[in-house]
Amino acid sequence: MDLLVENQHFRRDWSTATEVGGKAAAQNLADVAAMGAQPTALLVGLAAPGGLPVAWAEDLATGLAQECTRVGAVVAGGDISAAPLIMVAVTALGDLGGRPPVTRAGARPGDLVAVAGLLGHSAAGLALLKAGRTEPARLLAEHRWPHPEYAAGPEAAALGATAMIDVSDGLVQDLGHVAEQSGVRIDLESAQLPRDDALRAAADALGEQDPLDWILTGGEDHALAATFPPGAALPPRWSVVGRVSTGRGIRVDSRHVEAMSGWRHFR
Amino acid sequence: MDLLVENQHFRRDWSTATEVGGKAAAQNLADVAAMGAQPTALLVGLAAPGGLPVAWAEDLATGLAQECTRVGAVVAGGDISAAPLIMVAVTALGDLGGRPPVTRAGARPGDLVAVAGLLGHSAAGLALLKAGRTEPARLLAEHRWPHPEYAAGPEAAALGATAMIDVSDGLVQDLGHVAEQSGVRIDLESAQLPRDDALRAAADALGEQDPLDWILTGGEDHALAATFPPGAALPPRWSVVGRVSTGRGIRVDSRHVEAMSGWRHFR
Repeated sequence: MDLLVENQHFRRDWSTATEVGGKAAAQNLADVAAMGAQPTALLVGLAAPGGLPVAWAEDLATGLAQECTRVGAVVAGGDISAAPLIMVAVTALGDLGGRPPVTRAGARPGDLVAVAGLLGHSAAGLALLKAGRTEPARLLAEHRWPHPEYAAGPEAAALGATAMIDVSDGLVQDLGHVAEQSGVRIDLESAQLPRDDALRAAADALGEQDPLDWILTGGEDHALAATFPPGAALPPRWSVVGRVSTGRGIRVDSRHVEAMSGWRHFR
Repeated sequence: MDLLVENQHFRRDWSTATEVGGKAAAQNLADVAAMGAQPTALLVGLAAPGGLPVAWAEDLATGLAQECTRVGAVVAGGDISAAPLIMVAVTALGDLGGRPPVTRAGARPGDLVAVAGLLGHSAAGLALLKAGRTEPARLLAEHRWPHPEYAAGPEAAALGATAMIDVSDGLVQDLGHVAEQSGVRIDLESAQLPRDDALRAAADALGEQDPLDWILTGGEDHALAATFPPGAALPPRWSVVGRVSTGRGIRVDSRHVEAMSGWRHFR
């Protein structure tokens, strides 16, 4: 379940209602996939001012439905209420097909750490929006409406993933939950973290040295990050980015980093 | 799923946080029971201002947990977010034990209409609160924290209920949904509707002629209203209050009434 609050999680002048709906669906469906389940349904609550154009609510529903269609899920019900600003509450349901869920607590020393999906794109898109930039347009679109690799979740479960999470608050912060709940240390190699030309172009445009901050601390792409037994044969969409070892916390290139660099909800 | 928005569904000066939590749980658990299922879990989203006392959130959780305990359910997860005012989003899950759900669409001409639980108590309690009255105290408490008869839901399913709903928006309005979705008319006999001394005392105190308005249009007690095949042997907690026949709409004492007299969310 996730809450989206206007001006906290989205801005009506930065995202269309369809994009808000698509993003709300994506972040919840990704949570279900990250436990190794097939997403099946969403329940959606919409609180909104009485003066909200009906078209906004209809477009929100369109975005929710479109993202559900990508994974074979449906919007199965919900509630509406009046409120002074828009709040969207989404609960996602899924089907584990009888398998146990993949949790955050099963990583073991020696495991590989791998990610499937984009890292840092949403954060770079947000930085571009804040700076009034419109290019690379792909990053702005990925901020407004991420498209997680849902199928990678059940795939990872079938490959024997020992722990998994979707990157909603930043790779360091979310893998920090895995490290803490599994009682292990996770070492990341920055050179192995996937980065593409669009990210480099955004860094150049904004005068950043390197997109690594976005990759390590940017959330909302909803990439899946999982740990696998050593020797697991991972399909191409999974990039090995580190190792699990004994200890605690997260290290990047052998230096300890603070998980607090992810989003702070009550900043 | 239900949304509760501050000043729309509750007031912090009228209800404690524990009561808000208890009521939020009750209305969602009752929805699940009204399909014939055993409620099992709640997912709860809390959006709140940064200045909200932590004790308020803790008390909310206490109320949610206490009402869950009444029916053997648990709070299994959720989300928090900052927002300018409090909003609570609750999704309830349940277990049908392999039986098909009881919906609103199965009522057939000739069926009995019966209710289990209180009618009009929450509405009378709200009227007393608005008038600054403190007696009968029981009605104020029932407005702040209803205690639905959850077990009546699976019981009705086992007794062959053809349709069921929990009375959240008023008996006439909610049975109106059953009549519409079943393609039938429902006739209620006002003399058969349960009313007790507390309701009569509230009507006297507020100068109302009769508590019937509260009973017919008051929501939030979350009584269960169901239709049963004629001849069903109903346990004592079920009161037969009417009959299903051919036609459409709701009649009370042979007069058609408008379902619009229930709550209007965007009034």
